[in-house]
Amino acid sequence: MRFMVLNGPNLNWLGRREPAVYGRMTLGEVNDRLRQRAVALGCELLFYQSNSEGALIDFVQAHADEVDGLIVNPGGLTHYGISLRDALAALERPIIEVHLSNIYAREPWRKTDVIAEVAKGQIAGLGWRSYTAALDVLVDMISERAT
Amino acid sequence: MRFMVLNGPNLNWLGRREPAVYGRMTLGEVNDRLRQRAVALGCELLFYQSNSEGALIDFVQAHADEVDGLIVNPGGLTHYGISLRDALAALERPIIEVHLSNIYAREPWRKTDVIAEVAKGQIAGLGWRSYTAALDVLVDMISERAT
Amino acid sequence: MRFMVLNGPNLNWLGRREPAVYGRMTLGEVNDRLRQRAVALGCELLFYQSNSEGALIDFVQAHADEVDGLIVNPGGLTHYGISLRDALAALERPIIEVHLSNIYAREPWRKTDVIAEVAKGQIAGLGWRSYTAALDVLVDMISERAT
Amino acid sequence: MRFMVLNGPNLNWLGRREPAVYGRMTLGEVNDRLRQRAVALGCELLFYQSNSEGALIDFVQAHADEVDGLIVNPGGLTHYGISLRDALAALERPIIEVHLSNIYAREPWRKTDVIAEVAKGQIAGLGWRSYTAALDVLVDMISERAT
Amino acid sequence: MRFMVLNGPNLNWLGRREPAVYGRMTLGEVNDRLRQRAVALGCELLFYQSNSEGALIDFVQAHADEVDGLIVNPGGLTHYGISLRDALAALERPIIEVHLSNIYAREPWRKTDVIAEVAKGQIAGLGWRSYTAALDVLVDMISERAT
Amino acid sequence: MRFMVLNGPNLNWLGRREPAVYGRMTLGEVNDRLRQRAVALGCELLFYQSNSEGALIDFVQAHADEVDGLIVNPGGLTHYGISLRDALAALERPIIEVHLSNIYAREPWRKTDVIAEVAKGQIAGLGWRSYTAALDVLVDMISERAT
Amino acid sequence: MRFMVLNGPNLNWLGRREPAVYGRMTLGEVNDRLRQRAVALGCELLFYQSNSEGALIDFVQAHADEVDGLIVNPGGLTHYGISLRDALAALERPIIEVHLSNIYAREPWRKTDVIAEVAKGQIAGLGWRSYTAALDVLVDMISERAT
Amino acid sequence: MRFMVLNGPNLNWLGRREPAVYGRMTLGEVNDRLRQRAVALGCELLFYQSNSEGALIDFVQAHADEVDGLIVNPGGLTHYGISLRDALAALERPIIEVHLSNIYAREPWRKTDVIAEVAKGQIAGLGWRSYTAALDVLVDMISERAT
Amino acid sequence: MRFMVLNGPNLNWLGRREPAVYGRMTLGEVNDRLRQRAVALGCELLFYQSNSEGALIDFVQAHADEVDGLIVNPGGLTHYGISLRDALAALERPIIEVHLSNIYAREPWRKTDVIAEVAKGQIAGLGWRSYTAALDVLVDMISERAT
Amino acid sequence: MRFMVLNGPNLNWLGRREPAVYGRMTLGEVNDRLRQRAVALGCELLFYQSNSEGALIDFVQAHADEVDGLIVNPGGLTHYGISLRDALAALERPIIEVHLSNIYAREPWRKTDVIAEVAKGQIAGLGWRSYTAALDVLVDMISERAT
Amino acid sequence: MRFMVLNGPNLNWLGRREPAVYGRMTLGEVNDRLRQRAVALGCELLFYQSNSEGALIDFVQAHADEVDGLIVNPGGLTHYGISLRDALAALERPIIEVHLSNIYAREPWRKTDVIAEVAKGQIAGLGWRSYTAALDVLVDMISERAT
Amino acid sequence: MRFMVLNGPNLNWLGRREPAVYGRMTLGEVNDRLRQRAVALGCELLFYQSNSEGALIDFVQAHADEVDGLIVNPGGLTHYGISLRDALAALERPIIEVHLSNIYAREPWRKTDVIAEVAKGQIAGLGWRSYTAALDVLVDMISERAT
Repeated sequence: MRFMVLNGPNLNWLGRREPAVYGRMTLGEVNDRLRQRAVALGCELLFYQSNSEGALIDFVQAHADEVDGLIVNPGGLTHYGISLRDALAALERPIIEVHLSNIYAREPWRKTDVIAEVAKGQIAGLGWRSYTAALDVLVDMISERAT
Repeated sequence: MRFMVLNGPNLNWLGRREPAVYGRMTLGEVNDRLRQRAVALGCELLFYQSNSEGALIDFVQAHADEVDGLIVNPGGLTHYGISLRDALAALERPIIEVHLSNIYAREPWRKTDVIAEVAKGQIAGLGWRSYTAALDVLVDMISERAT
Repeated sequence: MRFMVLNGPNLNWLGRREPAVYGRMTLGEVNDRLRQRAVALGCELLFYQSNSEGALIDFVQAHADEVDGLIVNPGGLTHYGISLRDALAALERPIIEVHLSNIYAREPWRKTDVIAEVAKGQIAGLGWRSYTAALDVLVDMISERAT
Repeated sequence: MRFMVLNGPNLNWLGRREPAVYGRMTLGEVNDRLRQRAVALGCELLFYQSNSEGALIDFVQAHADEVDGLIVNPGGLTHYGISLRDALAALERPIIEVHLSNIYAREPWRKTDVIAEVAKGQIAGLGWRSYTAALDVLVDMISERAT
Repeated sequence: MRFMVLNGPNLNWLGRREPAVYGRMTLGEVNDRLRQRAVALGCELLFYQSNSEGALIDFVQAHADEVDGLIVNPGGLTHYGISLRDALAALERPIIEVHLSNIYAREPWRKTDVIAEVAKGQIAGLGWRSYTAALDVLVDMISERAT
Repeated sequence: MRFMVLNGPNLNWLGRREPAVYGRMTLGEVNDRLRQRAVALGCELLFYQSNSEGALIDFVQAHADEVDGLIVNPGGLTHYGISLRDALAALERPIIEVHLSNIYAREPWRKTDVIAEVAKGQIAGLGWRSYTAALDVLVDMISERAT
Repeated sequence: MRFMVLNGPNLNWLGRREPAVYGRMTLGEVNDRLRQRAVALGCELLFYQSNSEGALIDFVQAHADEVDGLIVNPGGLTHYGISLRDALAALERPIIEVHLSNIYAREPWRKTDVIAEVAKGQIAGLGWRSYTAALDVLVDMISERAT
Repeated sequence: MRFMVLNGPNLNWLGRREPAVYGRMTLGEVNDRLRQRAVALGCELLFYQSNSEGALIDFVQAHADEVDGLIVNPGGLTHYGISLRDALAALERPIIEVHLSNIYAREPWRKTDVIAEVAKGQIAGLGWRSYTAALDVLVDMISERAT
Repeated sequence: MRFMVLNGPNLNWLGRREPAVYGRMTLGEVNDRLRQRAVALGCELLFYQSNSEGALIDFVQAHADEVDGLIVNPGGLTHYGISLRDALAALERPIIEVHLSNIYAREPWRKTDVIAEVAKGQIAGLGWRSYTAALDVLVDMISERAT
Repeated sequence: MRFMVLNGPNLNWLGRREPAVYGRMTLGEVNDRLRQRAVALGCELLFYQSNSEGALIDFVQAHADEVDGLIVNPGGLTHYGISLRDALAALERPIIEVHLSNIYAREPWRKTDVIAEVAKGQIAGLGWRSYTAALDVLVDMISERAT
Repeated sequence: MRFMVLNGPNLNWLGRREPAVYGRMTLGEVNDRLRQRAVALGCELLFYQSNSEGALIDFVQAHADEVDGLIVNPGGLTHYGISLRDALAALERPIIEVHLSNIYAREPWRKTDVIAEVAKGQIAGLGWRSYTAALDVLVDMISERAT
Repeated sequence: MRFMVLNGPNLNWLGRREPAVYGRMTLGEVNDRLRQRAVALGCELLFYQSNSEGALIDFVQAHADEVDGLIVNPGGLTHYGISLRDALAALERPIIEVHLSNIYAREPWRKTDVIAEVAKGQIAGLGWRSYTAALDVLVDMISERAT
């Protein structure tokens, strides 16, 4: 099994950006945790981060056929990235949307989520564990289906 | 470690209610999975389900001091149960809100979530795995903090 | 044939509550009229009234399999009782929503009806006749289908 | 007793128009059922259908004094026909608004009903039985008052 | 092949009404261009214009079976003519909605279009060419399907 | 000088319709007062009333060139008659919109006025005097301009 | 008979302020026309203009008992002057609200009129004639009532 | 004189729940203060608190005839408890709604108050003094009326 | 102790203005009751009423340092007087907002209260007792704090 | 004559993305059809597709002077791409906006079109024919003007 | 060159009012800085502050002809002072609106700015430098124009 | 001192794009003026313009540590560029948002500014002077702080 881990704008600044909200762990460290988990679960991960919506779509299209599912943290695009939404809607793979912070307990406009309706589910507010929980569930779901 | 697993209105009909949306697994079966996981993780669970908001609040108040965290699926109360919200806001324990279905990809009014802002995070759309993932994260968070 | 007649909050005060709006007939008298009609139509009725949404849901779940249809006056829950709505949505029986007064000719917020979309139809503004007309139609519909 | 049965735009195409929503019975057949009921109840009916709001108002004004009440299915005018509303508001006779389908469980804009507040009550979602139930209630109400 | 060309209120005053917005060509001249095109494409046209929504619906119902598709410029009814919308929705023929001006670049309320969702597509802002382009596409679509 | 006096739906029932709001004077009597004033002012009047928006537009188009200005009471069309609005917008003559009652002190939806922006001005709430005041002003304006 | 003519903020700049909208006649000239008319009609006028809402209310309260009616052009206070509205609501005399320009054909926020619902009627868009027409109607109404 | 003191969901946790907002005094202590005041004023109090809207309504209906007025703190039901509102609307006794905190200076949704329009008045933001002030006023009002 | 009693626009007309809503007691009589209470409570009062928002702000600024708290009835400024709000926000003294009538049970726009969020609390709907209750509470609060 | 054919995000996946909505034809095949038409019409086409709004703007700016008009399918940017809108607004060439599907008959948010007001016209819902019809009209318009 | 520096309600309390938001510098000190700058730039300043909208308008009208431009900080009137807006709109001189704080990063209702659309530009959030920057730009603009 | 001058989409077309709104000066010329000013003020500038939100974020992240403050004109991203907003929010340097035109006096949707709340202040409507004024203030602020 292979999964894409897609991170949107500003997630490369994790650890530096508003640490009171997002914590002090960097994206590299989050990815390390994911990698360890992937090893334990016997699956591979394909990481990508970009600050550009277009580049994210390009990557999704280029690698869609190589993966069995996606973990997506759209960053600020969560609230207006309809093009990214359309790209994800075109896939026929399970997608889990993740957020580090609880976007429902912040500014009112952060409740507008244009990505949610093309995801199978979402995990928010659990810090880096949002990612690892998503991976656990994806592997579990696909394994079950495979049986 | 001990956790409350709180299920709101109609979750006792899981498996019977709109199986196309909620799946065919019953609440008993979900709880069994949770129990197995709890055993594996070395923690205890306190289950409660009610169709009455008042009874849910009574239970939360009565057992708040006995648990280290809560997993809450508020059912229909998600969208208007401000009294339940206020009860949860009064706790000083981590709360994870879970939903079986992706409430953000259904009727527009299902996007109004009065509970979300008092939870630490939320997991939606992953079926019974929403619950087990919540348990994993809670145990993990509290263990880490305890260290 | 057997039907549930479900009355929500404050309908037990019928005849006493704002008689200019709701008339002077009590719920007991409305039920008597329904009973007479049921005898004439050769069907049985299962009555229940509660001021508690939770109790109403409990009753619906407990007796769902014993009836061929429901007549529901949700009282104040009409406007926010999403949990009752979800319980009714889980049934696979015809439901007719009734109201004594014309809720569309009163306060603007009375136009919000969270129950309507899970009912087959609704009858409003005809006083106690809203109930008897609902019974007539339910019996008629089910008889026809049975033929 | 005499009643007007007023049908708005497109109801002449009943049976042909979107049969999944409106059923296969024609307006002629609905009217036949009403006529039979009227015979049984000992009252007369005055039928009128038009696709033009103006023609409907003309008819209402011309025959207002000849009838004891009205059954109105405004069709698409339900949602914007304020002139028809004003004409009905000018009458001093009981009006029951009927709809074949449950307008509250369809497109959001179908919930806007400019006619409802000038009717005594409304019956929706019961197919042709919406009309016959309305007739039953009207006759019953007026008989009672007459006693 | 045969098509209905339906023009709503005030289009008979084309060329006279606000020429800065609608141009100086009359409806007769637009129809002439359509007729020439129809000859070239080997199809027939059935023209109708009315200032009355009721008359437009009558015409649509009367001639629905004689045509293979419709070109509709609803004029002012675009924004509130739900009865016309319902009549068009009842057809089982391709409909193209046309507008002379770009209704999306004018008064905000001109963006409300109650007709659009029952049309196959729409062409706006191209003056009389909106009509001829619609005819070209309709003929092309039906020919292809016929092959 | 010659003016059109256009009355929309239900104004032919003036004196009969909701007399508490609209008074007991009939449209005939209002027109008589206008006629007397016209004689005094040395101008002619062209009266028309219809319950049909289409007929009103037809009349406006047919007689536009014969008059120097219009007095329009659109009745219920005030709130949605965009086609009538478009017809009036096409004229190049001063239009005064009149209302018998103060539409701004009634139901909230009566404040939506789709006609107002194509009129030169409006007079509301002054009963039959709304019409005569409009006539006085029109004559006065045009006389002045003519000098 | 005696009437108050109340002019709100900036009307003292009439003739200087945005002449394209408000014309070149000054408030003094408008008042002269009103005075001439008052002489002809045999009534007295009490003029007041202020840029301060408080001063306008003081004046209304001080002179309320000396007049038989009011002509009010609230200027910018039309859109938010709820205190002026409350002062006018306390009077028991007929009030006519006047506007020089057609406030319904300008910026959207000019349609919010907090004064309208306490006036008997309103006249807008007729320039200085809005005032004289208001005076004519007030005198006429009160004379009639007096007879 | 006798008064009901009704406390809604979570008020039994007063002193424990968000003390920064609600203070450290418990409901028992608030009730003690009320009792002392009642003794001083020579009146009796009937206390009831519940986390369940249904139970609150049951209590109101059961004891309505035993009291001369009510003091109600609806807790979270303030914002959606329309059934409680309807129960209170059915009483014919003065009701004062109280809140410990200033609900108008908190989250925007706390400004929605479905109870307010059936109360005679409301007192908010004064902590436990909101209750005692309400009692003072009720006794004073009823005494005066009795004289 | 010393308190400012600030009354906004039109409160000088108390007893004369809409007595069905505001009662027949004059502001002088309300102030007398307050004065008597103040004597009993051993505190002084500084009264001010103005119809001008500017004058109210001037007074607040001039006397802010002389008082220990404020009782404010902003009258119509309640709904838009943001400048008065800003002046009150600048004080560091407890403010209680009072209203004679229940502003939450009147016109919808009376629910907009721009002052509420800078007050410690509010008392509405209790007539003149709104003022005396406010005084009682202010004195009580400040005494307690002083101990 | 030369035209730019600009395709926004995800249009490169045409044929693969949600074929039920967008059909099975690829963008390459659509472009082939356009090329054939261009040959027949004697004009040249400049194709560009990108998933990045920035790249689309760069291309528009770089080639604006080389073309006589544009055909633009903004894809998901239709709903929020204000920067693309501003780039197109800066051109002085006719633009036709095209959509494969009828965006007005899909999700409500697809009705928000930030591009429409800078286009001369739009063609939606006609599949690949939306493009060819746009080309026909552009060539026709420019030829006419050239004559 | 001569400029008016107009300050609205509560700006006379600068330094005292909410210093966390507005800083500790008084209006006198701000004006001193402006005066020094004016000397350096060779221009004169006309200062005025009032807590009354009416007085501000009076001042603007009285001195409009004596100045070449205005710097306006409308204070709380920013959000509802439409009369002040109308007075400023009547001037034919460049106006720069200034704010000490960033009104766009505070309460949501502070984003409503009724003055902005009659100003040439605005400067917000830069404390006293908002004023001096405005002066620099005004002088610079007018000098350039004069050359 | 060193400052970043960041220009968003389409600002590279300054002078060419809608010159009636934006003037005829090019971005190069604006930058020249800024450079001259920087020399005078003894500071350095780092210029960047891009039509791509992603590239702008990349640049901000890459050079954040090299500058003491930012001047940002987000162009069309002002209204939806939440990712850019998040990038700017992560900085700990003063940011001044500038606009050439007065965005508050244009299309209603231009009032939505997602960037404003992360800036210290904003300057709009002053053409190229918006930039130089921003630079003056930034230098002045930082110098003062440094003292």
